[in-house]
Formats: sequence, C-alpha cells, structure tokens
Amino acid sequence: MSRNIFVLFLFFLIGSLIADEGMWTYDNLPLKDLKEKYGFVPTKEWLDNVRLSSVRFMDGGSGSFVSPDGLILTNHHVAVGQLQKLSNAKRNYVKTGFYAKTKEEEIKCPDLEINILVDMKNVTDEILSVLKPDMTFEERLKAKKEKITEIENKAKKETGLEPEVVNLYHDGEFWLYLYKKYTDVRLVFAPERQAAYFGGDYDNFTYPRYDLDFALFRAYENGKPVKCKNYLKWNSNGIKEGDLVFVSGHPGSTDRLYTYNQLKYLRDYRYPYAIDFINHKLKVLEEFAQRGPEQARKALIYQFGLGNGLKAMTGEYKGLRDSILMNEKKKQEEELKNKVYSDEKLKKLYGDGWSIIDSALDLQIKNFKRLRYHSTGFSRLLGIALNIVRYVEEIEKPDKDRLEGYHESELDRLKFRLLSPAPIYKDLEEFNLADDLKQMKKNLDENDEFLKAFLGDNDPEKFAHYLISKTKLDNVDFRKKMLNGGKKAVKKSKDPLIKLALKIDPILRKEKEFYRNNIESRLRYGAEKIAKARFAIYGKSIYPDATFTLRLSYGTVKGYPYNGTIAPAYTTLYGLFDRALSFKGKREYSLPERFWQKKDSLDLSTPVNFVSTCDIIGGNSGSPVVNREGEIVGLIFDGNIESLYGRFLYDEKANRAVAVHTAYIIEALRKIYNADNIADELENR
Amino acid sequence: MSRNIFVLFLFFLIGSLIADEGMWTYDNLPLKDLKEKYGFVPTKEWLDNVRLSSVRFMDGGSGSFVSPDGLILTNHHVAVGQLQKLSNAKRNYVKTGFYAKTKEEEIKCPDLEINILVDMKNVTDEILSVLKPDMTFEERLKAKKEKITEIENKAKKETGLEPEVVNLYHDGEFWLYLYKKYTDVRLVFAPERQAAYFGGDYDNFTYPRYDLDFALFRAYENGKPVKCKNYLKWNSNGIKEGDLVFVSGHPGSTDRLYTYNQLKYLRDYRYPYAIDFINHKLKVLEEFAQRGPEQARKALIYQFGLGNGLKAMTGEYKGLRDSILMNEKKKQEEELKNKVYSDEKLKKLYGDGWSIIDSALDLQIKNFKRLRYHSTGFSRLLGIALNIVRYVEEIEKPDKDRLEGYHESELDRLKFRLLSPAPIYKDLEEFNLADDLKQMKKNLDENDEFLKAFLGDNDPEKFAHYLISKTKLDNVDFRKKMLNGGKKAVKKSKDPLIKLALKIDPILRKEKEFYRNNIESRLRYGAEKIAKARFAIYGKSIYPDATFTLRLSYGTVKGYPYNGTIAPAYTTLYGLFDRALSFKGKREYSLPERFWQKKDSLDLSTPVNFVSTCDIIGGNSGSPVVNREGEIVGLIFDGNIESLYGRFLYDEKANRAVAVHTAYIIEALRKIYNADNIADELENR
Repeated sequence: MSRNIFVLFLFFLIGSLIADEGMWTYDNLPLKDLKEKYGFVPTKEWLDNVRLSSVRFMDGGSGSFVSPDGLILTNHHVAVGQLQKLSNAKRNYVKTGFYAKTKEEEIKCPDLEINILVDMKNVTDEILSVLKPDMTFEERLKAKKEKITEIENKAKKETGLEPEVVNLYHDGEFWLYLYKKYTDVRLVFAPERQAAYFGGDYDNFTYPRYDLDFALFRAYENGKPVKCKNYLKWNSNGIKEGDLVFVSGHPGSTDRLYTYNQLKYLRDYRYPYAIDFINHKLKVLEEFAQRGPEQARKALIYQFGLGNGLKAMTGEYKGLRDSILMNEKKKQEEELKNKVYSDEKLKKLYGDGWSIIDSALDLQIKNFKRLRYHSTGFSRLLGIALNIVRYVEEIEKPDKDRLEGYHESELDRLKFRLLSPAPIYKDLEEFNLADDLKQMKKNLDENDEFLKAFLGDNDPEKFAHYLISKTKLDNVDFRKKMLNGGKKAVKKSKDPLIKLALKIDPILRKEKEFYRNNIESRLRYGAEKIAKARFAIYGKSIYPDATFTLRLSYGTVKGYPYNGTIAPAYTTLYGLFDRALSFKGKREYSLPERFWQKKDSLDLSTPVNFVSTCDIIGGNSGSPVVNREGEIVGLIFDGNIESLYGRFLYDEKANRAVAVHTAYIIEALRKIYNADNIADELENR
Repeated sequence: MSRNIFVLFLFFLIGSLIADEGMWTYDNLPLKDLKEKYGFVPTKEWLDNVRLSSVRFMDGGSGSFVSPDGLILTNHHVAVGQLQKLSNAKRNYVKTGFYAKTKEEEIKCPDLEINILVDMKNVTDEILSVLKPDMTFEERLKAKKEKITEIENKAKKETGLEPEVVNLYHDGEFWLYLYKKYTDVRLVFAPERQAAYFGGDYDNFTYPRYDLDFALFRAYENGKPVKCKNYLKWNSNGIKEGDLVFVSGHPGSTDRLYTYNQLKYLRDYRYPYAIDFINHKLKVLEEFAQRGPEQARKALIYQFGLGNGLKAMTGEYKGLRDSILMNEKKKQEEELKNKVYSDEKLKKLYGDGWSIIDSALDLQIKNFKRLRYHSTGFSRLLGIALNIVRYVEEIEKPDKDRLEGYHESELDRLKFRLLSPAPIYKDLEEFNLADDLKQMKKNLDENDEFLKAFLGDNDPEKFAHYLISKTKLDNVDFRKKMLNGGKKAVKKSKDPLIKLALKIDPILRKEKEFYRNNIESRLRYGAEKIAKARFAIYGKSIYPDATFTLRLSYGTVKGYPYNGTIAPAYTTLYGLFDRALSFKGKREYSLPERFWQKKDSLDLSTPVNFVSTCDIIGGNSGSPVVNREGEIVGLIFDGNIESLYGRFLYDEKANRAVAVHTAYIIEALRKIYNADNIADELENR
C-alpha cells in the first residue's frame, strides 16, 4: 500500500549515523559506538569467554565451542573438506551425512587443525626497531621478516603455543598472537549436503535462504574429549528483529584499505584473469565429473571451492566496475591524501606512500602473466613433492636464512599437513596436472625457462600420466621416508615428481625472490607509510583489513531492501518447503527424503536462517552469532549477494550476514535426525 | 554447486532466437513465430473464443468470462474501485471481502462498464483519404479527428454497439473496434484485500509472490445473468514449467515506438515531475488518512493508485536513466533512420518525421509547467462541474464542432459516469482541492490567468472549504437536474463549483486548443511518417504500442535470474505462510485470521502464483492466462520489477508476467471461504 513507501523510506534512511561497520580486533573494539548506539558495554568476562570459545579452522573457516565437553559448531561447508577426506567410494558422508550416536563412534579427522586465540601482544615497536632509515625496500622487508621469525620462534619455545605475528593495517601494526591448537578433532554430526547446501550454487551468497549449514566436531586431547572452561551457552530462542548481535570469527581477507590504484589493478588484471581461470577449471572439472559417479564425488570438493570463489569474485568484480563504489573509494582516498599533503610533516614522512605502491603495481603488471603461470598448479602430489624438496634443503640452513614456511616454529604444522593420511585421487591428479600443463603451454612463451624445465618437449597428457602413475607420493610412508631421508635421499630419489620438483624449484625460488625484493617490498613499504598517515589522522578509530585472525563484528538483526521489495529478518521452514516444491525436479532444490517423511512432525514456523548487519567476509563461515548475554543464537554461513561489494566497502543499507538459526539446528537434530543426545548436549539438558 | 554455473548459463542464454515479445492485435498475430518456436497454430475457433471471452474494464483493467452464466474473473485490484464504492463506514468490503452465496445476494456496481470486442475493421484508408498534401499540421489533425468522429457516430447508429476508432502504431493504422457493452455488472466474490494484496506496496511489482489477487463479477442483461456463448473453460491443474501460454487482455500503454528524443523528454521532464508530484500527493494523503480509520478508508483507494503509479514510474524512470537501455533504443532508431536515409524515396517522404517530433517536444518543454498546472486537479466534484458546464454547451453545437468526449457516440458513457451513485467524500474532496490550490499557487506565476481565475485572492484552504461545503454536486439528482436544465440553468446556477467551472473553462479550452494545434498535431504527424517508414521497411512484423485495446501475448512458464540466484516458475502456499511469519507483526504481511484457522486443511503444496515470459503491462491486470487448449490456467495480476523497463523495451531474460494460479483460487474458494458453489461453477461441476 502506498503509505508504506514512506515507511520504507524512513526504515532504511533514518537510523543511527554510526554504521555497524568493522571487523574489529579484540584489543581495539568500538566500545564507544556500541554504548552510544546500543547502550551495551561488554564486560571483560563476556569478551574473554566469547574470544576463548572462538575457534579457527586451519582449513579455512571459523567455529565455536558450544558445550563443556569440547563440542565445536561450524558450517557444513567448512567441514565438507574433512567429510570428503573421510569418505570413499562406499561411504560418502558428504552425501549421506554423519551421526555418531556415541562418543566411540566419533571419527578422527585426518588433518584438521583448530586454533584458539589465548593471548595477544603488540610487538610493533619491537619489529620496527630493527629498521634503519637508509635501508633499501628490500633490506627493510628482510629485516622485518627476520625479526618476526625470531619473535615467533622464541614464543613457541617459551610457551609451547602456536605463535603467529599478525600484520595489521598493512604493516601498520604487528601483534604476536598465541594459539592453543588441537589436532585430534573428531567428527560428531553432519547433515546431508542436500540440506546443508540447499539451493546449491544458485542460492550461494543470496538470501532469503533455507540452509541447514552446520556440522559438529569434538576436540580431543590425550584421547579424551577436551573439558572446556570456555564455551558459548546455547539459546534456542535465537533472535528477534532489531536485536543486537555479535559475530566472533576469522574473516579471511578484505581490501578496504587498498589504494585506489590497487583496486584498479584488481579490476583490470587480477579479477578478469582469475575469473577466466576459474571458468576454465570448472569447465574441465565438469568433464571429469561426467565420467561417472565416483569421479563426480572426487571432483565435487574442487568444484564447490571454485564455484564458490567464482560467484564471490564475480560479485566483487561487479563492485570494482561500479562507478558509485569506485568514486566512493576515490573520495575516501582523496580526503586522506589532502590531509597528508596539507601537513608538511606528514607529507614529508608519508606523502610518497602512494607512488611507492604505484611503482610496485607497475612491476606487477609488467610481470603479470609470468608470475601467474610459474606455479605448481592444481596437483596436490606435485605440491607435496616441492614441499619435500624444500624441506630437506631448508632445515640444513640457519633458521633466519630459510624460506618462509620452513622456520623452526612452522615445521610441526608443515609436517602435519604433508603427512596427512587423507586420500589423494590419482585419476583426478593426473587430469588436473595435464590441464595445468596445457594451460601453461598455451599461455607461456615457448622459450620460457619454467615451461622448458617443467614440460620440456613432452606431451602434456602423456607426461602427466607418466608423472602421476609412477610417483609413490600418494603413500604417506613414502613421504615420511623422504622427509626423514634428508637432502641426500631426496637427490637420489627416482620418484618422477621428486625429480621434477628438484628441477623446477630453483626457478620458482628465483621468482619468489624477485617478487619479494621488487614487488612485496615496495607494496609493504608504501602501505606502511599510508597506515602511519592514517593513524596520525584518524587514530585507532579504524579497523584493520581482515587477515584470517580473530575479529568481533556487531550489528542488528534486520531485513533490507531487495528485488524491489524487502527481505525479511528471518525465514521459516515453510519457506524451505516452498522453495523445494517450486523447483520440483531440480536437484539443487531437492531435499533429503527424510525431510518429507518427517515434515508433518516439524514445527514449520521454526526460523531457519536470519540476517544481520554484522560485517563479515569469507573465513567468517562457521562463526557464532552471539547475543548480549554472550549466548549463541546463530551460526554465520554466508553473506547476501549485496555483501560481495563488502570486500572493498561496507554498505549497511543492504550488506547482510546470513546465519543458521539455533532453533532450526535443534528442530532438525531432534525431529529429523533423531539425535536427541546431541540436542540435549547443546541445550545443556 | 559449481557445475550449475554452466547450467545457469545455458539455461538463460541459449534458447530460441525468437523472443516472446509483443502485445499483438488479433488481426496481426505472429503465427509464423508461434509455429516455429512452439509448433502451435491457433484455430479460428480458438482465437474467436479467447477474444470473445476477453473483457475490458472501463475503470482500467482486463478480465474474462469463465462460466456460461456470465461469471467474470478479474483481479481484486481491478475490482477494488467498485468495492470501495460499495463500501461505507459500516460495511467495508475492501477490508472484509464479499461473498454472494446466491445470485440474489450479488450487488450491482454503481458505475462499472465492461466491453467485449465483437468486431474490428481497418479504416486507415478511409481516414487518410481526407488528408490533403497542402494541409497544415493543425488542419491534418482536425480533418483526421472529424473523420474519426463521423465513423464512430455512424457505427454506433448502425450497430448499437460501442464504437472506438483505435489509433495503432502512432497514426500508422486506424481500426474501428466495436464493443458489446454491459453496465449491469454485479459483485459476486472478493477476498479480503489483505490476502489479495498480500505484501502490499512492498511486494507490488515483484516476484516471488503469494497473492490471491482475484475477484468475481457477473454480467447481467435485462436483470438476468448473461448467457455466454463464449467463455474460457477452467483448468485447475494450471501450468507446469515450460508450458506455452497466452495472455489476452488490454495493456494500457507502452512507449516502445517513441523516438529517442521522446524518451529523453520523458526522462528529463515528465518522469521527474510526475514522481515528485506523486510523492507529494502521497505525503499529504497520508496526513488525511492519519486523522482516523474512516479517513484512512476513504484515502486508501487514492493511496493505492498513486503508490502503484509511483512504484511503476520509479522503475521506468530507472530504465530511462540506464545507459544500456537508452543505447539500445538509440541503436534501434539509428538502424531505422539509416534505412530511411539511404533510400531517396523514403527519405523524401518520411525523413523529416523525427525533426517534426522534435519541434513538438521543444514546445512541450517550453510550456511544460503551465500545461501541467492548468488543470482541475484531484477534486472529483470540480471535474463533474466542468463536465456539466461543457456538456450543456457542447450538445448545442453540430457534432463535428464539439470537444472530444462530447460527441453523440460518447454521451451515453459520459452520462453513465457523471450520474454514478458512487459516494463522493466531501472531507477528502476539500482536502484534495485545498492541496491542489496550494500547489498551483506555489508553482504558477502570480499573474497566471488560470491561477487568477481559479483562486483569485482567496486563501486555498478557506476557498476549498467554501467550494466543497456549499456545492450540491455530490447529489446525483442535482447533477441530473443541471444536465437536463441545459445551458441556461447552468449559467444561472449559484452552485459555487459550477460557477468556478464556468470561469475556468474558457482558459482550459484555450490550453487544450494550444496543445492540439501546436503540439499534438506535430507529434502525430511526425509519428505517422515514422510509422509509415517502419511499415515500408519492416512490414507488419512489428506490433503497435499498447493502447488499452485487446491484445494477445504469448510466452513460456519460466523462472529467471534474480537476486544472485534464480526465481522459480511458481510459488506455493508454503511460501505464503513463510513470508507471513517472516514479517510477523508487519501489517502488509499479516494474513486474514481465517487463513490461520484453515491452514491445516489446506494443501500447502498448491501453486499460488507463477511467471511467464508473456509481454504485458498495466491494463493487462485481470487478463486470463490461457493454455494451448484455450483453457484458463491463470490470472495475470502484475509484472516483476524487471518488467518495468518493458514500457520501453522487452527483455526476455528477466521480464516476467506474474499470475495467480487457478489452483489457488479453487483451494481458497473451497477451503478458506467455503464457497463451493462458486468453485463448482468455475470447475463446471
């Protein structure tokens, strides 16, 4: 009705002047804004409990402890990599789901590492203290990196915890984060992917949504479930529109502090290239999947990852080509530049930040194609071969001279990954490697030294077949033998992938060095200057770009304008069945049979998914949504299509985080899956 | 899932090269395309039955006969004007709905006229024969109009049918349409507006949708239900995705054949003005509605009309500002122009068509504000006064010298409207008139002759109060007396609105004449040239712009890309309850109580609304959706938000017509409203 036009207008345009923006570090929360806008001041206990309940999945993703017995809630799509690794031709947990009725039935994941941020310390001064004014770009970067390694090694030795020096604000601040890590993590429950990823790629990154995108793990230590002091109390009543909520998780990366020219570089180079590349890979993977159901099963996880990336990048790319977004970014940059240039001291110190970055971008553009195609590509086995070759070489060097990834403090994690018992599928490996070689041949100059070393005069398909069929690297014991055999054994090895890795490694190292000394060093020095200028002008009222480290976002449960109308704050089970029936016959929208069988026992008014203005991005998947009381009320699993611009700019009008409602998880566990014991554990009954 | 990206791609980009475009006249259907694309050739019987079952609502809107006893199906929002006129402070059928359990309970509508197109004849040559090469623009237009009147008068006299000479292709063709008319039309059934217009202005022009937007009337003749030879057989199974369907109805107007400069005129003048105007009117009407529930009831129908118009125009305006759309229009025009200019004969005959139109646009722009504000505005009573003043003057003249609207063949319809017993609300009249006067005073020059004649030195509010409180024109007998009293009685009348109308009429006539002689005459002569050029080049492969006359569209039941995902071909009752619950507490999404009471008896998988690629626009509301068998399977009630660009350009990718599924109407009648007798009549049980 017409009067609502005004209501609509008021609803979306009025409201607080403070936007619900920011992925804030726990040391620098916008407490003043929170108090002003929501009248809420979190206590130290509140913050400590939320932080210590927050879990980082090293596979990528977030989660949280939700019971005193180490139960961890995350998304199905965060768990799906492990589900795939635990599956085979006969038992496909991705498809059927999984339910451990007792603790004995919980299965250990082959290579899942989770982290909890237990301590954090600002080490900016310590790191910057090693820099001297007359250093070159290259020397500065080297000095920084050496100091970081030194701090990390020392921390690991002293605490036994997993150390990470985190670079915030693009070289503006450095913090030493210390993580408690668990590597014995067991699968407890996962629904069928059909229910978790209902709507498939179509509905991915959209809302209204109806997904049961959750899975449960349990952390073990010394063979026993971890007794958690910190976990989030479960609240099945969830949310109502207008509620203040928080998201604590590990957003992967944003580019909001990039310079305007960096965004132009993304728009004109990285995105068009990457989108083309993914489109190509998806096309060839589909060929592989079409060969049979087992091939389809193996390809699924790659297809999901690439399809997800493609949809995200397509939305982001659209943002980069949108004049409104780019003009806003330009305006923001010009405001900052004007402030810097109008202050003699700032101008002298930081005024050349932008041009230094521009000089790096020039080099990046000039070497774009070569840097892209000089890589080991999609083959996991070749990646393992290169890791082994490097490992045996690097560990003989003094720590400070080693390649990144091979420092003392990093070796545990490296070996945990390299020696994972997860299956590697040789047919898919061969297929991927052959395609990589074909692409390389097509895109690189025929005299390119990397191409010559890698492929030589061989035919891509035959060579890939030879390499993969002959290698023994799919055998974990063989990998172990190689790692332990050291440089000598590796050099002597007849394994064709090891031999190939030895051949291409020098070229890849050279490339890495070129990039580090000429591009990274400039990018980071320029960024450091801009970061310092920002601090000088805006203080700490800004938050750093996302870095896959723990952040807290806040916001309101709230609908938004969409499709010419408004999207509701939450959806219900009625909507799930509506969408399933509306697409009758299409498999992305087909529900597991048991949903139909149990339909009449369900309370269809149960909220399914909901949206809030919380500022999130990929990596936040699996993050808990927490209310004022510090209880968990939802589970982040996506952003809406409008949120994709959020990589560059947050717009509260339509940017929404999409979460699974806790009530849907309970309703599904109890009534669809007959998993009352798990629901009881969650609800603490 | 990622593989679907390709499916999505194929799904929307492949497909026939022939678009489902066009609102075709029944004399020139795209039979070749239909056969080629769908393998369907409608028989003469099929076409005759669909045409003769199609109903035009003179209030605006379409409908169809759906039983042999004269039952007419249309939209609730087409019926709502009559529902309002039949309501009062004590019985509000708009709110409560209406159900005549027996024929005796069916209520006659105060002023509803419906038409059925029974005959059509091309009279282009007859009309163009009166034109002479040396005529001025003004003379050409006058000669055309006189001939049209002559043809209409003659036809009315000879046939007793309602004649209308229809101008197609913007003066490219003229057809004499003859209508069978019914003025005894009775209300049979209407659901509550809450159910019919579920989602209100928010969901208006959007999809997915869940509206029960239907109402039923019955045509009577000589006090008895009309026995229909032609009506559409009801099919409750409705549609499935991919079905070929047709829409037969009366699209109001499109601007697809406008020149590029006409579109720019719309973009730069008409739309911004009109949108501002509607926004203003909605704001003041909301003030009125806030005074109390009875005022809200009275204002509702205006608010609905304006809100609906605002949303449509806002979408259309967005189209006009979209460079893709405008570039496409420019391209089309340049293609035509190039063809004209590269042919000496065409160039000489029609080459100046565009510049003639441009000269009219210049005048229109120059006189824009004056032409806009020299009007009687929103007051119905003042409109009636002006009609009476003109009527008594015009009927004394020879027919050919009369103002349009007062020719012999038009008088029945004029009197039917003028003498409608529908209530007129004086408080709302006064409110509207006062606002019109304020706007006029604000926007016109203080020496403007119309403003001086209309308002003089009076205070707008006081003057409006005086005029409306003193007039007797709300009394139908008084109106009748005035009409019958003739010129003398009117001149002597002391009724303040009659007196005012006498005062402003000369100025309004002068304005009308200025517009006709200087602007309309040019616009139409230029358009005639372009139309002839189009025929010369493209023949009759094109369809005319919509003219609120009968058209047939065709298309496929099909979803479309939306909101980053896809919209389904149809929705279900599950979705209705989902959306209602999702917006708990918001009144646009609150369902009538009986929906909740009857919920458990409903088959929630019943299809509710569906979309097809059929090309429609406002005026098509209430049109039947017909299948290959000529059965009715749905009821058009809206276009999606993407269809709003369709006023200028049809885009099959996302332009969709939204219809109520016949199954929902039956399910609602039987299970929610206990109206089995009506459902039985529809289903012919």
